[in-house]
Amino acid sequence: MNANTFGSVFSLTTFGESHGAGVGGVIDGCPAGIALDEALVQTELDRRKPGTGMAGTTRKESDTVRLLSGVFEGKTTGTSIGFFIANESQRSGDYGNLAQVFRPGHADFGYQHKYGLRDYRGGGRSSGRETAARVVGGAVARAVLAQQGIEILGASTAIGGIEASTIVMEEARACPYFACDAAIVPQWEEHIASVRRSGDTVGGVVRIEARNVPVGLGEPVFDKLDARLAYACMGVGAVKGVSIGEGFGAALLRGSSNNDPLHPQGFASNHAGGVLGGISSGQNIIVECAVKPIPSIAQEQQTVTLHNEPTSIIVGGRHDICAIPRIVPVLEAMVALTLADFLLLQRRMG
Amino acid sequence: MNANTFGSVFSLTTFGESHGAGVGGVIDGCPAGIALDEALVQTELDRRKPGTGMAGTTRKESDTVRLLSGVFEGKTTGTSIGFFIANESQRSGDYGNLAQVFRPGHADFGYQHKYGLRDYRGGGRSSGRETAARVVGGAVARAVLAQQGIEILGASTAIGGIEASTIVMEEARACPYFACDAAIVPQWEEHIASVRRSGDTVGGVVRIEARNVPVGLGEPVFDKLDARLAYACMGVGAVKGVSIGEGFGAALLRGSSNNDPLHPQGFASNHAGGVLGGISSGQNIIVECAVKPIPSIAQEQQTVTLHNEPTSIIVGGRHDICAIPRIVPVLEAMVALTLADFLLLQRRMG
Amino acid sequence: MNANTFGSVFSLTTFGESHGAGVGGVIDGCPAGIALDEALVQTELDRRKPGTGMAGTTRKESDTVRLLSGVFEGKTTGTSIGFFIANESQRSGDYGNLAQVFRPGHADFGYQHKYGLRDYRGGGRSSGRETAARVVGGAVARAVLAQQGIEILGASTAIGGIEASTIVMEEARACPYFACDAAIVPQWEEHIASVRRSGDTVGGVVRIEARNVPVGLGEPVFDKLDARLAYACMGVGAVKGVSIGEGFGAALLRGSSNNDPLHPQGFASNHAGGVLGGISSGQNIIVECAVKPIPSIAQEQQTVTLHNEPTSIIVGGRHDICAIPRIVPVLEAMVALTLADFLLLQRRMG
Amino acid sequence: MNANTFGSVFSLTTFGESHGAGVGGVIDGCPAGIALDEALVQTELDRRKPGTGMAGTTRKESDTVRLLSGVFEGKTTGTSIGFFIANESQRSGDYGNLAQVFRPGHADFGYQHKYGLRDYRGGGRSSGRETAARVVGGAVARAVLAQQGIEILGASTAIGGIEASTIVMEEARACPYFACDAAIVPQWEEHIASVRRSGDTVGGVVRIEARNVPVGLGEPVFDKLDARLAYACMGVGAVKGVSIGEGFGAALLRGSSNNDPLHPQGFASNHAGGVLGGISSGQNIIVECAVKPIPSIAQEQQTVTLHNEPTSIIVGGRHDICAIPRIVPVLEAMVALTLADFLLLQRRMG
Repeated sequence: MNANTFGSVFSLTTFGESHGAGVGGVIDGCPAGIALDEALVQTELDRRKPGTGMAGTTRKESDTVRLLSGVFEGKTTGTSIGFFIANESQRSGDYGNLAQVFRPGHADFGYQHKYGLRDYRGGGRSSGRETAARVVGGAVARAVLAQQGIEILGASTAIGGIEASTIVMEEARACPYFACDAAIVPQWEEHIASVRRSGDTVGGVVRIEARNVPVGLGEPVFDKLDARLAYACMGVGAVKGVSIGEGFGAALLRGSSNNDPLHPQGFASNHAGGVLGGISSGQNIIVECAVKPIPSIAQEQQTVTLHNEPTSIIVGGRHDICAIPRIVPVLEAMVALTLADFLLLQRRMG
Repeated sequence: MNANTFGSVFSLTTFGESHGAGVGGVIDGCPAGIALDEALVQTELDRRKPGTGMAGTTRKESDTVRLLSGVFEGKTTGTSIGFFIANESQRSGDYGNLAQVFRPGHADFGYQHKYGLRDYRGGGRSSGRETAARVVGGAVARAVLAQQGIEILGASTAIGGIEASTIVMEEARACPYFACDAAIVPQWEEHIASVRRSGDTVGGVVRIEARNVPVGLGEPVFDKLDARLAYACMGVGAVKGVSIGEGFGAALLRGSSNNDPLHPQGFASNHAGGVLGGISSGQNIIVECAVKPIPSIAQEQQTVTLHNEPTSIIVGGRHDICAIPRIVPVLEAMVALTLADFLLLQRRMG
Repeated sequence: MNANTFGSVFSLTTFGESHGAGVGGVIDGCPAGIALDEALVQTELDRRKPGTGMAGTTRKESDTVRLLSGVFEGKTTGTSIGFFIANESQRSGDYGNLAQVFRPGHADFGYQHKYGLRDYRGGGRSSGRETAARVVGGAVARAVLAQQGIEILGASTAIGGIEASTIVMEEARACPYFACDAAIVPQWEEHIASVRRSGDTVGGVVRIEARNVPVGLGEPVFDKLDARLAYACMGVGAVKGVSIGEGFGAALLRGSSNNDPLHPQGFASNHAGGVLGGISSGQNIIVECAVKPIPSIAQEQQTVTLHNEPTSIIVGGRHDICAIPRIVPVLEAMVALTLADFLLLQRRMG
Repeated sequence: MNANTFGSVFSLTTFGESHGAGVGGVIDGCPAGIALDEALVQTELDRRKPGTGMAGTTRKESDTVRLLSGVFEGKTTGTSIGFFIANESQRSGDYGNLAQVFRPGHADFGYQHKYGLRDYRGGGRSSGRETAARVVGGAVARAVLAQQGIEILGASTAIGGIEASTIVMEEARACPYFACDAAIVPQWEEHIASVRRSGDTVGGVVRIEARNVPVGLGEPVFDKLDARLAYACMGVGAVKGVSIGEGFGAALLRGSSNNDPLHPQGFASNHAGGVLGGISSGQNIIVECAVKPIPSIAQEQQTVTLHNEPTSIIVGGRHDICAIPRIVPVLEAMVALTLADFLLLQRRMG
């Protein structure tokens, strides 16, 4: 099953906990000869760091990645690439009281029942910190994709139900919250500030687009490109829904509206989101993810102890108000990993 | 990659095309000693057949499954189970003109560009007929799950934007369209009849619930239970969105509303849809799927030929107006296959 | 685990028992556009049939393969290829007494303890009949390899300890027993006749060579080409040892003798058997397999019943005296499947 | 393909080169609650270190392993276990001249042609140093197996063609060269000293036994226990042959001698080596591996440069004369990893 491995011919295997030594992993199947160094990977990793925005935690990690193998004289060698990011800022004392209590909305309950014990410090393996390793894998995947001109862009389109009115993916890299529309940012900031004051948290929607994807990626039947993308994105903590193209909106359309007519110059529309029959069509691939509000809230909640006794909890520690913006580079990474795997797999057909 | 295989320790591998000899497959990893015969599997398969409802095709297949191995004296032997469903009703003449033209919204374009050729008869491998093999695999998975008391229920909750006002999963087995509410059926029938008259098609929403799922199924990080469910369902043709629990609605909630408080008697709500941190919580698992309108419409559409010349097409043949109800048993099967795989995987932890 | 699936990007999944409906399988990952029909596959399958030699069983099966999908207008479509070979000659009565007794040297004991029940008719799934499906998969693999000029040759080099003095792989296709030297055949026939008279069976050695294999196939560390070949061949019933190049002889050599010097024209010798560091070197790949004597002997043997009571058995039925020659095409098939998988995987590195 | 991953439900993924930062990996699928710490793993790793025997290199590495995740309060948590062993003794200057030349018998040629470039320092990824990560994985696998009383013993039975006359596996742990018979050690030492003086190297044979293995491990058809063991052991550099039980000797026996009669007290012999039909029989599992002489010899050898020009080479650096004894703990680890995977897989059948 290799449940900590993602991908088949291009794969990422990860390890690490919130309050252990650090997080790391192994990237396997990366072609030889690709320019790669720690600086390139670090750039991606830095995008995931808590910023100065209202939504962020105050936990500060330098998140410095070290590449441990698979690169020689600035190029990948085709062998497995090990990497490690040491944990630095661990105030375990913050979390000590969580050993005996399940936080509502968190993985605590599942881990305890599955394994019979758990590393309760900051969520252990279920911590969002785990996603740092995904971003490293995604950075290498991007380097593979870039050789074919494929780009992955991520953006936030809604926070707390406040939707951006226009979507310009290119704006997001420079915008707070990776917003797809700079004009929406003040409203989001105000909303988040208000939510924070009430000791609560909010969710949102993230959109990922892949550009310049060649026609033909994806496998029919089970390994459809959209199925793998759904797997990739739903596997990120906090994501509760994934859609492709029109998504749930397609359930409201008629065939005559939802179909994308073909012209010699290309498709006349992109309701399909770049995937037909599980195979990329050459149009932009469009994925949207529903992100739930962060379950750690500064309000009293009913819960039970390890021994199923009723109790209440106010989750302390340094927590985000919204998984956006930090989840954006993570979802970009998951899409990049998926596409790199299919791209390398596809070459064998040539 | 084994793109025609689904699952790891309990797996289904399929083959077959719409207008070839038939569809079939191999089920691997089924424990020995489970009562199984062709009649039990046939019962599930019959649920997928076109009914007499307004939404259905007039193509009639007896869809008789034959089990070819892995069963001895009425019980599974632990070895691989081969099966085959012969195609019977093939009027290839209906489809002959499709060799040169891509049907909008269909897999034709992707297959042609991926493989350089395609079996264009009725969609070939991309035909919905492929899903018959999934239902067979799902029937065996259900037999495995039933040993633990686990049940999978599927229902339609909306067609063409007309949503049922109440959801009673148990009603669906007996209701036309597998509707979750018998009261909505007349409206759906009227709507579908109207759409059919306009030469168009409609989409809808399907809900799958799994009951009595033990706590602890699913793997952290990449192989989260919800990630695998998203992969399973998004891998069914026509599905454009998958959500768990509140799904996209979670993006609108605050943490204080979306969290499910714990009491000694259990969870006070089920916004999470039965999955926390990628691991089953013991609550009902709730999956919703957005189903797009069937792309074969009886209206003229713009498209191109194999040689990228503009042309138009009115798709003939015997087609459904809505993928609902036939998709419901298919989605049930995919959820059953996913849960059986995790259930068998989990036992090793004991 | 998918224990009935072999291969990753080019894979074979099989099913079927000795006395059930038949044996069959699914070939996945075959590139599109390869000329393939039943006649081509049948030719390979016919090589596995019992011949008129002294070593063979008198069971006669026409072993007619039917391709059920994945081929359209004489070419592979890139989708999964289903196939089936119906059982015809089943005299279950021959085997009925085996329900209660474990045959020494057979899989009966393991199956019974693993699964708690077994299809005891003719060995069920553990019957050599299962290998017919491997030969079908191998035939398709050969078609893939042939496009690159890669050839697989198999031959017997020893039976009952009587070794051929010269090895000419090309002779084997036309020789009885697929002998690598026609001159040895009379001795083998005499020996086998003598063994048969004593109610006994014999083993032997099979050699497989792959020619025109490009440099670079195989993956370092775990998926070395030689490791996968060992897995492939040891997975054939009756094989108890697998060696590459010098094999066990290499344990007797010194480095100065075992190393293959390199010249601009190529390697000066091939002690390595075509694999260096797990990667093909471009030389012929040489695999040798030790084949144990068939365990079904016409002599009384001590054994136990299902209830662990002592008993004795003389195995009746129609059995071979030696797994050679029938195992030769099976081992060729396993090598072909392995190489096709690596060949297709390698292309992605380009 | 995940070529740097070994195993399915219990898996090891590795990375690292001879002269890079170090070697490491990720162990996935280890059950929760197993006592594990660095000291336990270090003990196994120390067995692989160069000793003071005549066969060893003079390169000294402390080989200190650090567990980076997956262990909490002295017990495994069920999540992935990352580990790292930093390289310390790297005299890259020793190897600099190898950038332009292929060492005969080494992986240099294959890597260069497969990847187009290579980390030539000390063999890079193809260095025996890679096996340190296998030993770490094996140590964790042993901890899993020990819970069921399963033990893995390894021993050398021959060096340079000098075979031990008796095999007592228990002696090996304390014996130089892990010899299965202390009496043979002086002969081996003398032989190795002589070989060293002639600037040459020697091969040998290693035997691995697994004790107390339950009946029923292994999967029929492709994933036979013996097939996986062959894959595991042939995947260790320098191994050129793998046999189970009688191995190549079985090719010389008759069925009446090779079969293991069954008595109510158990099997009367163990020619099968503990595996029948690919499934463990409850007897000791016996694997033998042919180990080739180390290709780095202190004699002049003919070879070619990167540009295929003739040249000669005398391989310098600090090299072993014989892969034995260091390969013994590595082969034990591979058998342990294989059995742990099957053991955990088997539990699900219960």
